[in-house]
Parts: sequence; structure tokens; C-alpha cells
Amino acid sequence: MYNHLGVLCVFVVNRLTATISLTTDFGAGSAYVAAIKGVILCINPDARIVDLSHSIPPQDLRFADFFLASTIPFFPPDVLHVVVVDPGVGSARRLLYVEAAGNRLLVPDNGCWTSLARLAAGQVEALALTSEQYWRHPVSPTFHGRDILAPVAAQLSLGLQPEQLGPPVTDWITLQTPEATLELGGQQAKGEVIFVDPFGNLITNIPAAMVDAIGPAAVRIGDQTVTRRVRTYAEAPKGSLVTLISSYGTLEIAVVEGNAAERLKMGVGSAVTVHQQPTV
Amino acid sequence: MYNHLGVLCVFVVNRLTATISLTTDFGAGSAYVAAIKGVILCINPDARIVDLSHSIPPQDLRFADFFLASTIPFFPPDVLHVVVVDPGVGSARRLLYVEAAGNRLLVPDNGCWTSLARLAAGQVEALALTSEQYWRHPVSPTFHGRDILAPVAAQLSLGLQPEQLGPPVTDWITLQTPEATLELGGQQAKGEVIFVDPFGNLITNIPAAMVDAIGPAAVRIGDQTVTRRVRTYAEAPKGSLVTLISSYGTLEIAVVEGNAAERLKMGVGSAVTVHQQPTV
Amino acid sequence: MYNHLGVLCVFVVNRLTATISLTTDFGAGSAYVAAIKGVILCINPDARIVDLSHSIPPQDLRFADFFLASTIPFFPPDVLHVVVVDPGVGSARRLLYVEAAGNRLLVPDNGCWTSLARLAAGQVEALALTSEQYWRHPVSPTFHGRDILAPVAAQLSLGLQPEQLGPPVTDWITLQTPEATLELGGQQAKGEVIFVDPFGNLITNIPAAMVDAIGPAAVRIGDQTVTRRVRTYAEAPKGSLVTLISSYGTLEIAVVEGNAAERLKMGVGSAVTVHQQPTV
Repeated sequence: MYNHLGVLCVFVVNRLTATISLTTDFGAGSAYVAAIKGVILCINPDARIVDLSHSIPPQDLRFADFFLASTIPFFPPDVLHVVVVDPGVGSARRLLYVEAAGNRLLVPDNGCWTSLARLAAGQVEALALTSEQYWRHPVSPTFHGRDILAPVAAQLSLGLQPEQLGPPVTDWITLQTPEATLELGGQQAKGEVIFVDPFGNLITNIPAAMVDAIGPAAVRIGDQTVTRRVRTYAEAPKGSLVTLISSYGTLEIAVVEGNAAERLKMGVGSAVTVHQQPTV
Repeated sequence: MYNHLGVLCVFVVNRLTATISLTTDFGAGSAYVAAIKGVILCINPDARIVDLSHSIPPQDLRFADFFLASTIPFFPPDVLHVVVVDPGVGSARRLLYVEAAGNRLLVPDNGCWTSLARLAAGQVEALALTSEQYWRHPVSPTFHGRDILAPVAAQLSLGLQPEQLGPPVTDWITLQTPEATLELGGQQAKGEVIFVDPFGNLITNIPAAMVDAIGPAAVRIGDQTVTRRVRTYAEAPKGSLVTLISSYGTLEIAVVEGNAAERLKMGVGSAVTVHQQPTV
Repeated sequence: MYNHLGVLCVFVVNRLTATISLTTDFGAGSAYVAAIKGVILCINPDARIVDLSHSIPPQDLRFADFFLASTIPFFPPDVLHVVVVDPGVGSARRLLYVEAAGNRLLVPDNGCWTSLARLAAGQVEALALTSEQYWRHPVSPTFHGRDILAPVAAQLSLGLQPEQLGPPVTDWITLQTPEATLELGGQQAKGEVIFVDPFGNLITNIPAAMVDAIGPAAVRIGDQTVTRRVRTYAEAPKGSLVTLISSYGTLEIAVVEGNAAERLKMGVGSAVTVHQQPTV
């Protein structure tokens, strides 16, 4: 009897841990996000939905890749991460169920999990979603997040085995994601702008750890050298050109209460170098 | 004994499914939303709260109506939807408990669920909230969402029967919500702008399905004809006047990286026509 | 046996009520917030996470103080509130576990809970977090929210006794938070602007109740007197200078579809007076 109770308890707790996270580019409060939540709860009323972000810049796969690699590794393996950043929706691109270093994702096959796969260093498996019986019908040509990913996530949270979803694949799309490199024996880092935020701040791919390792440094972008490093915008007067560590954990170039992208005429892909010795 | 265990299990699972969704015009991160969550959790600590949207444009009943009809039908019936878009708060307007085609809502009686009622095609019942013993006292004249709707939602999630809330009503307010119409044997759709988003994009009430049914088309608004149809803003050069399907599933008129409302001098209520044959 | 079942049931329900709220200045959809959620769920997969706000203005302790005092008292005592508004991260500032009038918080020792402590009127206890075995290692110097507060919150939600976290302290930091005062026998209120929102609206610390008690009134700020009181921006024509009750429950001075801070050249700290008799 005690054993039986134990089993019951495990069962109940298992249902509690059916957690599904959502990452989309729909914007906070979008009706699209609400619809996805509804579809999940229709299939598994006990699923717990966690909003990861709905603020991925629209269609921005490189940013999504960056975001997922910055966040998913912090989660326990039993969470299922649904990613709807899907510029190719309606085209022939596949949808995938992915396990990368124990983390489980449902993603469009557009490379948005490239850095996560790299972090997993070979511990990666993927399936193409082809078993239409787990989808919501009719499937909208423009909203596979609601009609395929959401119902599949809910079924998985109820115990569906991933193998039922479709055949294994190994030829998934990989993004060319620029990686920052440390050079000159650790005295210089080279990277690039990977995202311009709504305020015109230039977010680079140079990790804080790399910047910290270099120590006192000057940052070069275009023909400008930025020597002022702050922790927060508020530390420098309005209009100052500064560098800081962004909320994404990487080097950011900003104009205090201004727009760095406009002032420097720089954007995604602009080269950025961090030098150990201030040049000014 | 086994049966008894089964009953226990059902009881626990039932408590899990007490899900309350919130739709407000308070803005993400508003202290008002936080207060509503607190009041709900005080009464039912196990209630699961799902954010539907806090980005309804302030006081915009037509938008709320549109949002609710676009999202609520995706949810299972046991979810309770609390809607706090309430320009009439503090006036004599009633608050309602509504069941529409199985979906359950707590709403101000201001017509914000008109389209949902229409979708329910007669399967609608409503009660006026009059039983003050289920309210939070003193009731603020400007925040019935916190002091009436939130505690009533929490009580319902604990099993309170709706009949306890107040008397049935049938004379609820109905919004005049413009509906798009298909004309000329399906060759033309007529609708209007129902929302201007923060970027000046003109969101119409013409559903994607209607636009798709017409096929290659030109869109007429004011004295402008828009022939360029894109899936995403990024497909056309900056400054282009384009149409696309909005994240609300309807026709949208936009200027790429610009403000369509300002450029066309159009806004909520402007007539929009979709013609089967491009006129340009 | 029945008793035994009862115990089991209580255990399960207890786990359900492990609710952790998050209040940060990271912005909605930030990767930082996602990382905090992941760390919590790794330690307690059954923790229920409630987003309170991620829209606290960056580093704005006075706003955070205002926000927390406006929202936390609505929550039941068993909720654990994690607050990550932490301009001093990486400095010698302490992190605290606080109980104030039954509400439980994990906060940086920067005064962000000053008003909450005042509301608790002496029913306040605090511990400094020093027991590093409950932290996530290595601890990032710039992200104690993720590496200290999140894991400590998760451990508490699993039943860790607060006494394990570190020694009691009584010398916590207190903010100088300006409080509005009622003068002239209730005919006049004096306060100040405590926050300028993204639209330039001036949010004051004068509570709605104080404004209502005065009755018909004129509001003085700088050399301007504002006599038009609205409930919503939409009630007055574009460009009108108006007062209303903000979504934070206090007096707000706004320009309809305009920027009051720029037009009046006023900001945080500007004195505001509410007179019973209109002066114009």
C-alpha cells in the first residue's frame, strides 16, 4: 500500500512538471501567443506554460539563436521549449523536435538553435515532425506555431514518445553565426554587432568574460574608438559614447540617452575590436 | 481503497486545472496587473494564472472585442477569462459572468465580447454580478478588476457556482462591430481599419481567409491603391506601401519602416476594399 | 490509512503553493529573466513562477520601492517575491531575506523595500544571505539575481528554513522616499514627481485617496496650474495639459498625446501641490 501511494505521488508530481516554455517574435500581448497557449491547454489542461520571450526581433534568426543559447542551458531537461521564430512558415522548411545536451526543443528547421547545438558538442538528436495525426487541422499555412508546434508540445507533455513524431534527421540547417575570437595571446577580441536594440544600442557577440579577460580596454567600431566603459547608462552624461555589458551578457556600444546605431552609422555585422591598451 | 485513491487523484488534478486568464489594457508590468494576481492568489493559492494580453490599447473596446474573438475560442472551456478593459469603471455599467459556446468570461458589460457572442451563435448565457459577499471590500470606484472580478474569478476557481453571483440577464450591451463582407460573388471584400498599432500600421477587419479567397488583389484605402503584398515587412524596401496579414490574422496596410496612418492620413473607421483584379 | 492519505494530500497541495514572483528592471522578454526562471525550475521543477513586472525603470530604486509597496500587500504570505533591481550588483551591498507584515522577499539591500517596511509598521525581520552553499557557483559578479536570489528562492520553495540562509540583520539600507502630505486641514496636498514614464507623463507620489479627499482641485507644478482633471487621456483634446489618476494609483500630470516632462521641463523630484480651490 505504501508503495502504491508512492507511485500515485510520483504520478501526480510528474503531471506538475509538464512545463512548456514559449519563445516567439510575436510581441508581448500578441493574439498569436494567446492562441498558442489556448491550443496547449486544450490538449493538456495541466501543462504549465512559461513565457521565455515574445520580444525576439521579428524574423531575426541570429538573435533567436543568440537568445536560445543564452537561456535554454539554464533550464532543467524536462522542460519543453517551443520556439516560434519562423520566417519560412508555409514554405517547405521542416519542423524539428530536437534534443541538445538534454534540452528539448520544438523548432523550425531554420538554424535558430545552431549555437545551442554547438554548446551541446555532439550530444544532439533531431526528428522531423511528419506525423500529422498529432497536428491541429486544418493547418494554417502561416501559423505552424499554433497548428503544429503547440499541439505536438502538448502531446509530448502528456507522455507521447518523441519517436512517434517522425523520422530522425541529421541534415538540419545551420546558421552561420559569427563567433567572437580572442587574439594576440588574449590581448585583443574581435567580434561584430549582432543586434541593434529598439534604442539604437549596438549589441555585439563579444562575451563579457572575454572583455573582462582583456582588462582595461578600448573598443573600436568603424573609425571610432570608445574608451569609456560603464556598468550602466546612468554613469555617464547624456550623449556620451560608452561601452557596457548588455543584458545579454555581451559587449554593448551605446550613446547615453541617444542612438548609437544612428550616430555611428553602424549596424548588424559591423566589426568590433576590443584592444587591451587604450588607444586614446 | 483503490477507489478511494482514485478519488484523491482526481481531486488533486482538478485543483490543478483551475486556470484563470487575464486580458487587460494596463500595459505589461503594470502594478494593476500585479495587484489582480495577488488578489486571486490570496483566495485560491493554487489558481494558475495565464497572461493573455496586457497590451490591449487603453479603453479600446473594439480592439478588445477583436482580440477576445481571436483568442478565447482556442481555449478549453474550464479556463476562466478575466477581462479588464473598462472605460466605464465607476459608472453604473454592470459586470457580467458570461458563458459563450462553453467559454467562460468575467467582463464589464460594455460590449467587449460582442464578436465572441456572435461566434457562439445563440449559445450564450450571462449573469450580472450583484452578490457583494464575493467581492473585496472596500470596492475602489476605479478598480473593479481588482476588487470585484479578481475575487469572483478566484471563488469560481474554487468551485463557487456561477448562479450564486447574481441574476441572469439578457440585455447586455452589444458593440457595433463592423464586419467585413465579401461582395461581387467573392471577387471583392469590404471592411475597415479597426486598429492603428503603435507603429502606425493600419489593422483592418478583413480576415486573411477572405483575402486569400480573392487571390491576387489590389487594396484600396482612401484614394490610394496598394498592390504590393508581402508576408513580412522585410520583403520590401524602406518606405514601400504594402499589405500583409497582421499578427491578428487580418489584412494590414503598412509602410515599411514608416507610419502608414500618417502617410495616408487614415485611421480607425477608414474604409478598405480588396479587389480581385489589380487596378494598377 | 485515511490519515496517511490526508498527509499525502497536504504534501501535494503544499508543493502546488510554492509560488515565486519576479520583479526586475530587465525588460519584458529579456534573456536575464529567462535565465532566472531556468535556475529556479532546475532546483524546484514544481515552483510556480508569477511575473510581477519586468518593466521597473532600469536601476530605479525609488520606482521599485513604489511598485513593491503598491503590489506586494495584495499577495498571500506564502508567495516568495524575488526583486532584482540591483544597481549595486558586484559591490559590497548585501542581499537580504525579508519578512514584512507576513510578506516574504528576497531583495538587494538597497532600500527598494523601504515603503513596504513602513507599511509593516515594525513587523519586519531580515537576514543577510551569507550561506554560500545555497548559491549557484561560480557566482557572476554582475548577476546575483540568477546566481544567488534565484537558487535561494527555489530552495526556500522546497522548504529550506530561512534561518539557514544567514544571520539576522537590523541595519538595512533605507531609502529617503518622499511621502505626500495633507495640509491646511485637508485642503491641500503636497508631493512630488517620483517617476517619468516613457511617454513623458509625470507620475507623482500623491495618492488618489488624497486627491479625492480634497475634491475639486487645481494642481500646481513649477509655474503651471493644471485645472483639467480627466479619467483617461481620451477625454481631452490632443495637446491638453491634464491631471488624472495614474495606473499606479497616484496623481499624474500629462499632456494628451504629448510629453508633459518636456513641455513643463519637469522631472523626478519636481514639487507638486494640489489645492482645494481652483486658482484659475
